[in-house]
Order: sequence, then C-alpha cells, then structure tokens
Amino acid sequence: MSRVAVHGVGTSHFGRRPDRDLVGLAHDAVREALADAAVDAVDAVWVGTVFGPPGVAQRTLRALGITGVPVITVENACASGTTAFAEAHEAVRTGRYGRVLALGIEQMSTTFSGAITPEPTDPEQRSGLALPTLYAMSAARYLHLGAVTPAQLAAVSVKNHAHALHNPRAQYAGSYTVDEVLGSTMISDPLTLLQCCPTSDGAAAAVLAPASGGDREVVVRGVALRSGAPWNETSPHVWGYDIVRDTAADALAAAGLDTVVDVDVVEVHDAFTIGEIVTTEALGLVAEGEGGKVAEAGVTALGGRHPVNPSGGLLSRGHPLGATGLAQVAEIVWQLRGEAGGRQVGSARIGLVETMGGGVSVLDGNACVVAVLEGP
Amino acid sequence: MSRVAVHGVGTSHFGRRPDRDLVGLAHDAVREALADAAVDAVDAVWVGTVFGPPGVAQRTLRALGITGVPVITVENACASGTTAFAEAHEAVRTGRYGRVLALGIEQMSTTFSGAITPEPTDPEQRSGLALPTLYAMSAARYLHLGAVTPAQLAAVSVKNHAHALHNPRAQYAGSYTVDEVLGSTMISDPLTLLQCCPTSDGAAAAVLAPASGGDREVVVRGVALRSGAPWNETSPHVWGYDIVRDTAADALAAAGLDTVVDVDVVEVHDAFTIGEIVTTEALGLVAEGEGGKVAEAGVTALGGRHPVNPSGGLLSRGHPLGATGLAQVAEIVWQLRGEAGGRQVGSARIGLVETMGGGVSVLDGNACVVAVLEGP
Repeated sequence: MSRVAVHGVGTSHFGRRPDRDLVGLAHDAVREALADAAVDAVDAVWVGTVFGPPGVAQRTLRALGITGVPVITVENACASGTTAFAEAHEAVRTGRYGRVLALGIEQMSTTFSGAITPEPTDPEQRSGLALPTLYAMSAARYLHLGAVTPAQLAAVSVKNHAHALHNPRAQYAGSYTVDEVLGSTMISDPLTLLQCCPTSDGAAAAVLAPASGGDREVVVRGVALRSGAPWNETSPHVWGYDIVRDTAADALAAAGLDTVVDVDVVEVHDAFTIGEIVTTEALGLVAEGEGGKVAEAGVTALGGRHPVNPSGGLLSRGHPLGATGLAQVAEIVWQLRGEAGGRQVGSARIGLVETMGGGVSVLDGNACVVAVLEGP
Repeated sequence: MSRVAVHGVGTSHFGRRPDRDLVGLAHDAVREALADAAVDAVDAVWVGTVFGPPGVAQRTLRALGITGVPVITVENACASGTTAFAEAHEAVRTGRYGRVLALGIEQMSTTFSGAITPEPTDPEQRSGLALPTLYAMSAARYLHLGAVTPAQLAAVSVKNHAHALHNPRAQYAGSYTVDEVLGSTMISDPLTLLQCCPTSDGAAAAVLAPASGGDREVVVRGVALRSGAPWNETSPHVWGYDIVRDTAADALAAAGLDTVVDVDVVEVHDAFTIGEIVTTEALGLVAEGEGGKVAEAGVTALGGRHPVNPSGGLLSRGHPLGATGLAQVAEIVWQLRGEAGGRQVGSARIGLVETMGGGVSVLDGNACVVAVLEGP
C-alpha cells in the first residue's frame, strides 16, 4: 500500500459560462493540474459529474488529448467530485494505477434556469421539497431552538463573500453587510438569495500519485466516503448532520488524528448558510449549537481560530456540482503549500475537505466524502 | 489481496417494461442475487447505469431497504454494468470492503422510442452516425473484404434467438431462418431488424466476496478494464476490434491463461450481429476473418466447440445498457455451476464475459471490460 499525495491541482474560473462548454472548462482545470504536477500523462482518470450526459467524460478527455487510459465516471450527488478523488486515492493507494487524474465537471447554467429541479416522480418534487427548502427547514429548526439567529446565518454569507474577494476564480465575491444579506430576495424562508449558492459552471482537477517526499506534495492522510444513508427522522439532528459527523470520524481515524481541532483549515459544503453552520458542528470544529455564534464572532473567518471556507465556499466561489469537491481539494492544497495569496491561512499544516449531498432526490440517501490532507 | 468469488447472481426478466420502474426491476435482480448468495446485507454497492437520472442508484436501493452503505454509481457506456463488476471486484480484492453488490439498471423504453439518440452536439449526430450505422459500416467493410456473407451475419441472429428459446428471461426468443433474418426490416444496410439488439428494460446483480471454497462459488480469475480509446482510423481493424483484443489479453494474463481457447463458454457484446463476429475474432476464439464462417458452421452454437452467447446475447435477451454486463456475468455463473437448464454448456469450467461500448458519442472513446470466471 502506498502513501498517496496530491501532486498538482487546477480549476477553471467558476461562474455562469453558457458560452463555454465542458471541454473548455475542463481544459483550464486539467492543464493547470498537469502543469502543477509537472507531468504530461496519467494512467487512469476518475471523473465526477451529476448532470453530465452519458459519455461526457470520455468526450471531454478526448478533446484534451487524454486517450487510451481507463476512464470511469462516477456520480454521488454533490459529493461526486470528492468521490472521484476518493476513488483515485484508493487506486493509487492499492497500486492499481501509478498516477491518476481526478476530474470534476459540471455545467449547470445550460441545464437549469434556477435551482436544481427534483425528479418529477420523487416525493420531494411533489411536496415542493427542492434543495433550498430542505435547507430552509434545517434553518427554521435552528431558529426555533434558539441555536442560531438570522444575523448569525447571514454572517456566514458575509464571511464567505468577503473571503472570495481574495479569490479571483470565485463566481460572486462581495463586501456585504448582514442587513444586505437578510434584505436580499427571499428564496425559501428564512434563506435569502445571498444565503444560497449560485447556479455555476466549472471544472476542477487533481493529480494523485505515491508520495515521494517532494516539497510541493500534499499528502492524503485519510479519506472516507459514506452514502446510501437516508435521513433518519428519529435523529436528534437536522438532515445531514449525522452523516457528516460519521464520515469525518472515519476520515480522522484514517488520518490518525484524535480530533478535528488539529486541523488548521477546512473547506466545507456551504451550499446554504445553514449548511456551513451545521457542518462545523457536525465536524466537531465547534460545539453543537455554537456554529452560528462562532461565525458571527469571526472564529471561522480568515484570521480566526478555525478558518472555514477561505476560498469563499460554495456560496461565493460557486457550486458546479461535480466540480465542487475537487475545487475544495485544490483550495486546501494551495493553502497547505502557502500559495493562497490574500486568503492564505498562516502556517496551515493540516487541512480538511468535506462535501455532502443527497442526490436530486434529497431525502433518498445522503452522500458524504471527507478528506484530510497534510502539507509538505 | 483476496481471491474474489461471485457468491450469487440475479436478474430481472428483460424486456420492454414501461409499466415497471427501475425499483421493481432492481428488486427482482437484487433479491435473487442476495438469496443466491445466502446473505441479507452487503458492505458497499457499485451501480452501473448509462441513462439513469442522478440519484437513481440510491433511490432504487433505498426502496429495496439497502441503506447506510456506500453507493457509487458508475457510467462507462455499454460496459457500465461490467465496470460496476470490475470496481466491486477490486474493492473485495484489496480488502476495501468485505462483501460488495454490483448492480446494473437501465430503463430504455421510457427514454427512447427507438435506437439511442446521439447527443445533438456530437459529430456523430450531425453526420447520422447512430449506433446501428456505426456497426453497419463494420459489416459493410467485412462484406466488401469477403470476410463475411449476408447469410453468415444472419446466422448469428438465428443462433442467438434459438439459444434464447431456453432462456425464460430473454426479451425476444424465436426460431428464425436465415431468410427471415435477412428479410426483416432494413435498419442500416446491411443490418436488418433481427440483427439489431432491441430497446430493453432490465436489471442484473452479483454479490462478490472473498473466495472461501464454497461449492457454489465462481472464482473471478481476472478482470480487465480499458476505456478512453477513440477509434484509431489507421488500424487495419474495424471499430472495436483493437480494444476488445487488448482488454481480453489483459484479462487472460490476469487469469493466468495463455489462450482464450481454454475458455469453455463466453458471453460477448453482440449488440449487432457483426459485433459478435468481430468480437469472436478479436478475442482470438476464432481466426481473423473466420467469425462469420464459424457462426454459420455451428461452431459458436450450443453443442459447438466454442459456444458463444448461450443466453441469447444482447440480440435476444435484450440490452438494457447498464444491466447487460451483469446479466452476462449471471449467465456465465449459472453455466459454470451447471444451472443453465436447456442452454447448459456441458462441463463448462472456465467462462468469459466481454462488454464493449463507446458512449453515446460512439467515436469519442471505447470502453471495454473482460472478466474470466472459473466454476466451483
């Protein structure tokens, strides 16, 4: 079994890019990742996408000149990109392939006019439980329990949009106030527009190979994948909490870490503001019911004790589903190499990536991947 | 590393089942596979599907009561089912999971009215190169070279439809004559309707776990997967030949076999009659240019020296894309356990499965999986 490292990462600019097809977006990500790893070929490719049509992976890779190597496309809801990362990691770890490309691609702007539409045959579609609504239910519960305030929810949006001011690849950066966030268009009460991730196009990639001690290598200390777990309505926690907690525990154990507080920087799945709050609690980064308070107090901001989503997160960088997980990996790699520019978390040595989704039919089974990375 | 065995298999009835959803089809396959393996739970699931919508795997499995275990959906064109099988095999081989379900599902009848429609942005779509046309070009070339006759092409259809008379789960069985096959509706010259696989719905499953010497276990001697290889137009062979030859060589080497003639029974990807002919040659089962002659002479029929597609193959059992590869695995498992009833190949000890596809955009990259299995 090999110790695996990320040797290179790359992403496209994220945004609404109806003018640009997946080949163009993938080109930006893959070329950068290969150049970053200083290689020009790989032995296999795992591609994560949710709404990409059949054959899109091979079609895209052929256009990039990557042919004659195994290509496996995976779908695992919003965790598709990190599922590709987990599979690539496993293939290198076990020696199945020597050097593997993990690629995430998604073009949402030409697929949906607004939010993702659930499958028409799903109970969620019939009951109006689109994704913003599902997260809104969690937010409403937190509000009801006094575990969060509207201003604390908004603070997450303010923070992540401000972080993204230092991320030239983010879709929507901005200096907002809490009042501006709360005053933006109501999408699903209590979540306003600036508390919801946008519709995005993008691609992100990572090159994985055995660790060789190179001074730009970021070692994968542990990866865990869970899925197929429908919401347990008897849980004391809101949707998503339990699977994130359990997957993180698996990943930390694989990494040989006793606690998540040893982690210096994290990128988590903030598809909606409440998502980041719930996730920081589920990860154990902050105490249960404290996620909103710490966001408001700046603990999870750049410069705080537990910086969360220095990239701007899904809320601000954007959320092209299949690409998101690998964009999170790219951000953590840049952070651990000290290359994150104005959003650099000083002396970050250990980073964590968390992606959680639930398929289009959000209640039919969550999917979560957590990875723990260590800098050179 | 563990030696891996197939402990149980199951399939739905294949056919046009617009009245039945994927959950119902998967139910038939999974329940049978679990009962066959005498287990009621698995540690992880890989699901192969091409046109299944995002989340379909978890949605389907939840309805079957399979939750709380990792589910990874893979797409690899017509080889999606055997890709799920290959990934499940790898997971057991490396000890990643103890017992894994590989499931293939596809519902074509509600997606397409006739043949698969290539993506509208593909050059294939623009030039009319739908899948029947692509195979027709290979057939035309074989005819031009004198490597096959129209009657030999038809003989494959006659044989496979006759085999399926003994397969109660096949979509279309029948006793046809060569003249009837040649006289059926022309689809893409020279391929007539009875030389083309039908539009099908279905599911198929296999349970994999370490081999323990059980008297119903079928050992996986070797699996190989190739993809990402666009058609090399400078090859002396027709489309698909090279990747099948190379993938089979990988699988035979992994199985420790010097030659494919040690294999007693094979299930190959006969999406069209010419496909079976080209594949038997590419596998090395018959000499190049002899595929049609041997089919006509009965060599590849039940009772012949090299029985091919005793199940009826894609032509007759049907071809629900993601399910096909695992239906092939199921057939070989039944054959190697001596449970194939009226279509049993006497004393079959070693079997081979081959699936080959090329995505919807057929020229953008082939995908091929070959597995070599050995009976108890």
